[in-house]
This record gives sequence, C-alpha cells and structure tokens, in this order.
Amino acid sequence: MLLSIDKSKGETIFDQLVNQIKSLIESGDLQEGFQMPSTRQLGISLGVNRSTVIRAYEELWALGYIESTPGSYTKVRKRKSLNKDISPVSHGEIFWDDILKEAYKPDYVKLERFSQLVREENEHLISFNRLEPDSRLIDVRLINNCIRESISDSDKQIFSYCNPRGYELLRRSIVSHMRLHGVNSKDENILITNGSQNSLQLIFQTFITKDDYVAAESPTYSMLIPLIKYYGCKILEIPVTESGMDIEVFKKHLKKHPIKMIYTMPTFHNPTSVTLPQDKREELLSLCEKHKVIIIEDSIEEEMKYFGKVHLPIKSIDSHGVVIYLGSFSKILAPGFRIGWIIADKECVNRLTALKTMFDLSSNTFSQIMLYHFCKSGYYELHIRKYLRVFRKRMKVALKALKTYMPADKVVWQEPLGGFLIWLKLNVKADKIDLEEHFQKFGVKIIDGSSFFYNPPKEHYLRLSISKCNEEEIEEGMRRIAKALEELTVES
Amino acid sequence: MLLSIDKSKGETIFDQLVNQIKSLIESGDLQEGFQMPSTRQLGISLGVNRSTVIRAYEELWALGYIESTPGSYTKVRKRKSLNKDISPVSHGEIFWDDILKEAYKPDYVKLERFSQLVREENEHLISFNRLEPDSRLIDVRLINNCIRESISDSDKQIFSYCNPRGYELLRRSIVSHMRLHGVNSKDENILITNGSQNSLQLIFQTFITKDDYVAAESPTYSMLIPLIKYYGCKILEIPVTESGMDIEVFKKHLKKHPIKMIYTMPTFHNPTSVTLPQDKREELLSLCEKHKVIIIEDSIEEEMKYFGKVHLPIKSIDSHGVVIYLGSFSKILAPGFRIGWIIADKECVNRLTALKTMFDLSSNTFSQIMLYHFCKSGYYELHIRKYLRVFRKRMKVALKALKTYMPADKVVWQEPLGGFLIWLKLNVKADKIDLEEHFQKFGVKIIDGSSFFYNPPKEHYLRLSISKCNEEEIEEGMRRIAKALEELTVES
Repeated sequence: MLLSIDKSKGETIFDQLVNQIKSLIESGDLQEGFQMPSTRQLGISLGVNRSTVIRAYEELWALGYIESTPGSYTKVRKRKSLNKDISPVSHGEIFWDDILKEAYKPDYVKLERFSQLVREENEHLISFNRLEPDSRLIDVRLINNCIRESISDSDKQIFSYCNPRGYELLRRSIVSHMRLHGVNSKDENILITNGSQNSLQLIFQTFITKDDYVAAESPTYSMLIPLIKYYGCKILEIPVTESGMDIEVFKKHLKKHPIKMIYTMPTFHNPTSVTLPQDKREELLSLCEKHKVIIIEDSIEEEMKYFGKVHLPIKSIDSHGVVIYLGSFSKILAPGFRIGWIIADKECVNRLTALKTMFDLSSNTFSQIMLYHFCKSGYYELHIRKYLRVFRKRMKVALKALKTYMPADKVVWQEPLGGFLIWLKLNVKADKIDLEEHFQKFGVKIIDGSSFFYNPPKEHYLRLSISKCNEEEIEEGMRRIAKALEELTVES
Repeated sequence: MLLSIDKSKGETIFDQLVNQIKSLIESGDLQEGFQMPSTRQLGISLGVNRSTVIRAYEELWALGYIESTPGSYTKVRKRKSLNKDISPVSHGEIFWDDILKEAYKPDYVKLERFSQLVREENEHLISFNRLEPDSRLIDVRLINNCIRESISDSDKQIFSYCNPRGYELLRRSIVSHMRLHGVNSKDENILITNGSQNSLQLIFQTFITKDDYVAAESPTYSMLIPLIKYYGCKILEIPVTESGMDIEVFKKHLKKHPIKMIYTMPTFHNPTSVTLPQDKREELLSLCEKHKVIIIEDSIEEEMKYFGKVHLPIKSIDSHGVVIYLGSFSKILAPGFRIGWIIADKECVNRLTALKTMFDLSSNTFSQIMLYHFCKSGYYELHIRKYLRVFRKRMKVALKALKTYMPADKVVWQEPLGGFLIWLKLNVKADKIDLEEHFQKFGVKIIDGSSFFYNPPKEHYLRLSISKCNEEEIEEGMRRIAKALEELTVES
C-alpha cells in the first residue's frame, strides 16, 4: 500500500490515513477482498501510533470500506456507490397504489386544482376565483412591529415548540375577540390549529368513522367534499334556500338516519353567501341538542357584515356544548400564517388536542406569537374595521355593476349582506362547455359552481369572490363576465 | 309602541328603528306574541318611508326578534338568550368518548407529557430532557435580515397560501442542501411538511392499515409509539446493539411476517445515539428492496457528526426509491418554524401531497419563505458549521464529565460520534422510584428511558440531551446526576 503520512501537515494523521486508504479503494488500486495489513504492522511501517491506526480502521469499517470477521484478516469491501441518478427507478404508480390504504383513493385531479389556485396570477386576468384576502390591504408596517416585538422577547420562545393547544396568550386574545361575537369561552375551550382545514381534519379524524352520517348544506365548502369522501361517511345534503339551509329537509333526514354531525356556514355561506336567520339558528340548535348531533359552525367571514345588523354565531347561544366553532385568520388577514382556532366543549378540545399532539406536536410558534402581538396591540380590530369599510364599498360596487351589466335573461343572484362572495345562477346552455375556460378567455377567472356540490347539479352556477379585487377590478371584471355571457345561449 | 325617530340624529332611521324595537323586546316592554303594527301603519305614524320600515322588520326577523307567518300579523318572538355562562354544561367525558372512533383511544396521560415538556423552564433546573436546539446560538440578526427580505417581496407571497408541496424555491434549496449529504433528488421528490412528526403522520395515514406490520428499533423515538398504537399496526421490535439495529433480528421478522415499513434512525439514533455502519446500511437496504419494505429514514441530527467521518444517509444509495427520508429544521435551527421535509419516490410524494392538501392546504408560507432566504444567503450552512463547532466541544465536555463524576458501578454508556444524546444504562434498584422526579430533586431534568420503549424494559435507562445546555450547564448537570445516583442502591 502506498501511503505517505506527513506529520507536519495541517491534516491530522487520522484523517490522512482514512482519506488515503479511501482514495486507494475508490480508485480501484485496492481491490475488493484485498487483505489489509494488521494495525500493528501498519503502525510500525508508517511510524504512527497503533491506536491511531485502530481508530482509522474503525472509521473505514463504519464507512463501509473494509470488513473484518472475528479471527480473520481485515479485507477491502465493495461499497455501494452513491445513487448518482437524480431520477431513480420509480416504483411507479402501481406499487404505491398497491400499498395505499384500501379506503384511500383521493381524487388527485381535484386536489391538484388547489395547487393550481395558488400558482402565479396572470396580471391580465381578473381573479374572482380565490377566496383569499387582498394582501394590498395589509399594513406591512404593523406586521413588522409585531415581528420585532416577537423576536425581541428574551426567552426566544418563537424558536421553540409551542403548547399543542396553542400559545396561551393568543388563546386568551381569541377568547376576548370572540366575546365581541357573543361567544363566552375560556382558554380551555380553545385549540389553535394550522387553519380551518386542519381544524376540520382533526374533527373528522377524531369523531368520524366509515358509514357515519354527516349532514351539510348543498352546495357547500368545496374542500369539505374530499374529506367526506376520504373518511367514507354518508353525506346527507340539505338544500340552501334564500334564507339558508332548509331546516325541514334536515328534520326529514333526522327521522331517517342517526346523524353524527352537521357542517354548516350560517353566516355568508360559502358559496351562496346567504345567512341563516336567528329563528332557524335556534331551531337547528334545539334539534341538534335533542338528537345529539354535533354542529360544526364554520364562520370564516362573519366579521364582514356590510348591510343590516350582525348575526351572532350559533355558538353564542350554545349552552350545551354541541357546537364546535371554527375561526381563522385566513379570510380577513392572511392565510400564509396558517392559523385557525376551534372553540368547543373542553372534553372535546382535550380529545382533539391529543390527536393534534400526535400529528404535528404544535402549530407554528412564530405565527402564533406574531398574531398575539397583532391582537394585543389592537391592530387586528383596526384591520377588521378597515377591511369592513373597504369591502362594504367594494360589495356595493359589485352589486351595482351586476345590475348594470348582467343580461337579465341569463343570470340571477341574491344580494349578500356581507362576505366576499356572489353566487350567480346561470340560465344558459352550458352542458358541454368548460365554464372556467370560457370566462378565462374573456379575461376573468371564476369558479364553476359545480365544485361546491357533492353530486353534480343540473343547473349552472358561478361563484365570484371579490376578496382580492379593488373597485376598478370588480367593475371591469363584471363587464367581462357580462361579455362572456353574451356568447352563451339562453336555456329555453 | 313608544318609538321616537329623530331625523337629525347621526344614527340612520333604519338603525334607530331596529335598535329601539330591539330594546323594547329585550326589556320586556314588548312581550312574546305582541302583534306588531303593519309596516304601512308604522311608516305613516312615524312619518318615515315605508321601505325603511320593511327593511327594519326584515332585519329584526333575521335577528330572531319577530316572526311572521304568511297571511298573518307579525309578532314579537322570544329569542334565545346568549349563553352568558363561560363554562357551559359540558357533555362530559362519557359523551365525547362515546362518539370517538372505536379504534381511537389515545393515551391522554402520555400525550399530556409533551405539553408539560414545552412549559416554562425553572431556571434552577438543568434541562437534559429536551431534544431542542439551544436558541442562544441563533443569530437573531440573520433571522431578521431574512424576515425583512421575505416581507419586502412586492408580491407579498408570504401572506398567501403556498403550494401544498411546499414553496418551490425552498424545495430547491433543500435539493441543493441534500446533495451535500450525497442525496440526489429533484423538486418533485420533495414535500414540505409541518415538521417531522407531521411527515410521519402523513406517511402512516397514507400507507398504514390496521394490523400492518411495522418494524422499528427498540428503543425508538418516543412520539412514534402513540402513532403505532393509534393506527393499530403490529410493531416488530429490533433491539439496538452497540452498532445500531440488530439486522439478524430484522431478518427473522422478515421470515415470519409481511412487513410493510421499517422506521429507523441510522445516524445518532434517538435515544441511544448509536450509528449504523455502512455495511449494515447496505444490507438493510438490500433486504428492503427484496421484500418491498418501505424504509422511513429519520435523520434529524445527521449534520452533527463530531468525531470521525460523516455517514451518508441510506437515501444516498437508494436507487430503487424504497427509502422515504425525513429531514427537518427543528433539531439544528428552530422547531418554532414547524418545517420539515420528505424526500421520496415522486409517486409516493404525489400520494402524500394529496393527503396534505386535504388536511391543511399548505404548510406555513411565512416560515417557508423566511427559511428559503436563510438557506439562499448561506446562513443555514454557516449556522450548521457554528453549531457543529460548539457542540463538538460541548459533547467533549459532557463525555469528560461523565468519566469524572459517574459512579462506575451504577452506570454505563457508549460514547456517541455526534448528535446531542447520551444514553445511560443504570445498574440500580429503581423499580419503585419515579426516576424523573428523583433526578429533579437534585436539580436536573432527564427523561426516563422507558418512554422510548414500546414494551416497558426490565433495565433502567436515562436519556440525556445536551442540546439546550452550554458547557457550564453540562458540567454542573453531570455533577448533579452523579449526586442523584449516589442516593440509589446498586442492583446486585
């Protein structure tokens, strides 16, 4: 073996030994099976301490370059080479599908839609498709203040794991904030999650078994549908009327099936934007109390009441703890922080927390502490007031533009009291048309209403979200929709 | 009805009407069933426009204060009052347990331990219990730079949803970083998650069905155990020897059972800190390729090699895509960002992404963009080098202190080559002693080694993590441990 150890070199003798032997093996100068000199021999011949040679051999063994069997000589070993190919042989779809859980056949195509939604916008298009806040309205200076405060904390808590229930001070801020909505709760009723979708998943994962009956409005939140399918539950659809879900239909379902849970958006329902009046809220609650049905109340936009008075959440009159309320910072402030919350009976929160701990240990500490400062400084309430002022105007512009531009024979809508959504019912022949593509050709992105139905509807609908558009964009967008409608034929 | 409308007031007539009628009902002046005047009558008597009265009645109806049946008079309605009680009647444990999924009986007590771990530290205690970075080593200035860059981005992407696969530029940074570890991959092989626990959950949820066989080292990562129990799989334990898992035992398991997955930490195994040598890595990989067993390679600390050369991950020689590699920013930088990553066959990544989309839409955008800037600027590699330098010294201090202070008859350990962990095997009578309490009495927090076993072991172990301690704290902590050991009796 040609080794030369230079004691005056910066590299340690150990490193020189390991690196030189490694090179000889990698270059092929030392072939597989070559019998290495004993540590004693090598130490003497190189004039280095035997213990250094022993350590070097141990290292080479650990790295897979030599092997030694008890009572035998140490030999050169053929080491598996690195996988240089950046696209290794793929097991392919079949392999991974084979080992999937049997029940798990998500609809990749539909789920891929979400990725598409978050992709880069084309600036020539007006986006009525995303229900996401207009980040131009965020006062970055205030966010910066809060980040500075969060980071300057001497404990550097922002870098650590957080309590799985959520950052305690943020939970208290949420308790205070929810009091403005008539919801009285304590810290122990709050679980902070990675946004409302995560809240929903935790609830389904904890309580829903295959073949359970779950009721929901029809149409409903589009990302509820894959969850319903994934967990294999049976959906009972409740049509949405001009004043929210049709409670009579819910009553009929109750007579026939043991319903475990009902998912509802009573305020500015997504996608129809209708609001359930108080008497129906009370009736729904009484029915669910009587039949022990859990109510999931998803209230992502309820701050955004423009016209008339505020409806308080069902949770505000829930004296028996059957309502699991879902809140979020994603629809008014920013989804990028991925923070939402659940308010529920404390025993329910305990069970959800156990799952949350197992599933991701805790929500994002950085976002939570930053948002705590945002709430504590009063910035959040300020932001909501600003948002309300701006969007009251924007919604008025949208409703006026609708009246001005839309062809009355082809489209009808109900004026929303708040929120960001407008639900258009089309009266056109469009069975063979990809509506989203059609409107995009006219420079406006909308969502085909069928995305919000469990079973495809016979009628055609569009959901427009004005949440990312300013007044000019709304006005222009409505004009484009009207133009695109001109090209479609009235359903006779 | 005593209503007085003042047209010169700032409050609109609509608001005055609604608020005054509401007050009369709430005060009891208008009783349930009281017949309201017709809108026409009221409009005339107050001298206000009838349409305003109609809108006010609609609002009062929506708010639940009045009801109207077709063809009949409008009447005052008794509205459910707000739930003023901040602790509503709880359904109690039994109710929520009844509706839990049958299979789901998590061990609340054990999961609550995690919450306890993240609670405030007592400054008089030395914490060897948390495997979490020392935030004193974070250069807050650099983090601030990255936040500033992230926020100043004109698109304000940090406030938006992110691609469910993860922020594209961060995925590319991870691809580059992993090349330093011999792992060649493309963007499409990466999925960014909310930390390694979230990675594990996604993998279990996607691929593991009840009664599947899953192999894992014994002892193993403590938070794997609740997942194994929750998903109802059958665990096959593989004892850890001085040089990593005992492959012979794994072979025996393979002969008896169709194993679906093996979870392993080949480098600086948690909790024992041993490292699997290269030949065994290759043997394990070949066995898994042959038997189609998925390898989950959890490599949270592999940057931290202090002594000898670096072992490359099994993923680096995985030419058939059977290895799912888990990486994380939590163990070297900060768990508060809740960002980890999965590297796997692209078909596998597609399936995991579908689930991720359904479960929380996307990981935290803010953290991801910040970390991208941290990687891009070279700060991450700098941070790792600094960490390595600091902890090489700290580990030396720890090993020296062990030798100096520990009573040789009561404790043995193996010197780790890297990482933050030291695994002490005790030779003391402690069957009836709460070890964590005992050591805490002496001012040092450790974790009882039994937490890392699926089935409680006969021997007693302690896991010490030096990850949050500086040299002085380590030295003092070891002294305290030695003192605490003095109080225990040698097992004869």
